[in-house]
Amino acid sequence: MNSSQRLDRTFAALADPTRRAILVRLASGEASVTELSKPFRMSQPAISKHLRVLEHAGLISRGREAQRRPRRLEPAPLAEADEWLERYREFWEGSFERLDALLEEMKTKDRKRTRKKG
Amino acid sequence: MNSSQRLDRTFAALADPTRRAILVRLASGEASVTELSKPFRMSQPAISKHLRVLEHAGLISRGREAQRRPRRLEPAPLAEADEWLERYREFWEGSFERLDALLEEMKTKDRKRTRKKG
Repeated sequence: MNSSQRLDRTFAALADPTRRAILVRLASGEASVTELSKPFRMSQPAISKHLRVLEHAGLISRGREAQRRPRRLEPAPLAEADEWLERYREFWEGSFERLDALLEEMKTKDRKRTRKKG
Repeated sequence: MNSSQRLDRTFAALADPTRRAILVRLASGEASVTELSKPFRMSQPAISKHLRVLEHAGLISRGREAQRRPRRLEPAPLAEADEWLERYREFWEGSFERLDALLEEMKTKDRKRTRKKG
């Protein structure tokens, strides 16, 4: 895999809320599939499918411990994706002074929508 | 769309080398579809399809100029994706001292592979 193919897989793997949540969980330490399944209202096979996508993208790896085979976050692909975005950070930080306000506005709208639903 | 749905669309849109290249091009200024098609060995309909994905994700917008309808980069979704990754930057910067070396190693391998092909 070259850098472009790795970015394809990393960004595709990140394009799902469950997979992003799994990565957030693993950032605080390794965990077994059972432990990873708990916070989600999802079957273990559904979680396993997401884990395969993450593993295929090199974002997680499996520990050697025979029974648990704990999953661990692998930081390199995330760092590479971050590096790609970093090149354009200048673009949005420099040219768009209103951006912070805009992001704040988007989040306030989200919160209002969430409150209405709840 | 809430923040999570926006991240889904942004990351999915970034999971393609042509779409990333289009964003890179637009970071240096707006461009028409014809201008965007030139560097790619791709038909205009194929480019238009990629542009629709980028537009759907809010990453680009269309200018008002009747004939050209130039596309423009919209930075907010990229900034939001960057913000998501930023939260985990600490994880890979702190815990993985070998990461820089690892990224360097991956890139050296890429270059060697490219040279072999060429």
